[in-house]
Amino acid sequence: MTTKYKLVLIRHGESVYNQQNLFCGWHDADLSETGINEAVKAGKTLKEQGYEFDIAFTSVLKRAIKTLYLLQEELDCHWLPVVRSWRLNERHYGALQGYNKSETAKTYGEDQVKQWRRSYDIPPPKLEKTDSRWAGKEAKYEHMDQGMIPASECLKDTVERTLPFWYDSIVPAIKSGKRVLISAHGNSLRGLIKYLDNMSDLAIIDKNIPTAMPLVYELDENLRPVKDYYLGSAEEVAAAEAKVANQGKAK
Amino acid sequence: MTTKYKLVLIRHGESVYNQQNLFCGWHDADLSETGINEAVKAGKTLKEQGYEFDIAFTSVLKRAIKTLYLLQEELDCHWLPVVRSWRLNERHYGALQGYNKSETAKTYGEDQVKQWRRSYDIPPPKLEKTDSRWAGKEAKYEHMDQGMIPASECLKDTVERTLPFWYDSIVPAIKSGKRVLISAHGNSLRGLIKYLDNMSDLAIIDKNIPTAMPLVYELDENLRPVKDYYLGSAEEVAAAEAKVANQGKAK
Repeated sequence: MTTKYKLVLIRHGESVYNQQNLFCGWHDADLSETGINEAVKAGKTLKEQGYEFDIAFTSVLKRAIKTLYLLQEELDCHWLPVVRSWRLNERHYGALQGYNKSETAKTYGEDQVKQWRRSYDIPPPKLEKTDSRWAGKEAKYEHMDQGMIPASECLKDTVERTLPFWYDSIVPAIKSGKRVLISAHGNSLRGLIKYLDNMSDLAIIDKNIPTAMPLVYELDENLRPVKDYYLGSAEEVAAAEAKVANQGKAK
Repeated sequence: MTTKYKLVLIRHGESVYNQQNLFCGWHDADLSETGINEAVKAGKTLKEQGYEFDIAFTSVLKRAIKTLYLLQEELDCHWLPVVRSWRLNERHYGALQGYNKSETAKTYGEDQVKQWRRSYDIPPPKLEKTDSRWAGKEAKYEHMDQGMIPASECLKDTVERTLPFWYDSIVPAIKSGKRVLISAHGNSLRGLIKYLDNMSDLAIIDKNIPTAMPLVYELDENLRPVKDYYLGSAEEVAAAEAKVANQGKAK
């Protein structure tokens, strides 16, 4: 297999919800100061290594959009077409959204929370449409078929709603020779990675994606991965992955 | 005539080229600190007056894109679809790009410069394709038919290449009920205003558009203007317009 295309994925920088160890999901949390610095650093890394792009895809959540904007700032490519889609949003965490991860672990038990966080097909409790956190009330989802707005998602649900956007919007861009950058979220990116690497439902559970660390997928002419690697030192990647894995544990 | 739609236009905040009194055109100058503050202020004004949007259009030049981003930041609408097009770019200033306006007035005479700046159909001297300033060398124009890249534009040229984007992209958005925000440039906006207000070639010459001051057009069902007004005090608008008018004079 020889590399024909390069795709760059990036999970947004740390958000204020990450920082407070809260379940974020579709809550539109802002980047923390750390997250801003992470995104700027990622932009400088891409710049130093000579990466250029022709189009970018992101979610409708500001932590991903701002991360992308900070990359654009470093790469001096504000002109890049940016396509936003709810299909790249973070996994919807249902009724857990806004709750502290450690507190939830104390309440429900670490195993239950790990199951909600890391099982492939068991969604957390649903958010009711009468709840003030219901996404259908937000302007950004107003034009959607309200039946498409999730009340809660397991990773399987996220994969299934992310992939149509991959097939319909991202693949045609890559195949037309455009160099694609995707700024998204831990779980929507996990969905793409599961698909690209043909990972089992079990294997994807332990796959952690560090914040704001560019992940390069080299793809062959059939868009199958030739190899993938983070842009950053091995120590930085290991430290970042360990940090993500520790978040589910009761403190 | 009754108002059916509201359209908001904004000229980007002051750029470092505006600040240095240089002909900017398609040169991708950044916002100055003043420009950033102007854009933030405009965002706060829109927010205070309850404006909301469904889609935004801008050029491929960062001073307009950043102005829009700063408005999005204040209005908390990062999710807004943003459509970028070279057709909303500033007028191409040809061989004058990067030159000081006052110096150019001293060299060629104030009348000649006023003619280049303010005549409707006399373009400034052309930029050669061998010039380092030729836009065809930039990534953002790489995918364009190179014959479409201007060597120099009079206002008439700018109007003629802006209007297709109005008809094909902006009008359908307005007619579908979307609340539209356009962040663009002195001359591309002048083109739209000339069309909307059915102004003569002579009248548009003396129409000045202040930087980063939201300009609201209320439109009837046929997209004809019912009324238009700036969001800002009468003093702010008059002061801003006077500032723009003074830029062409030798100092």
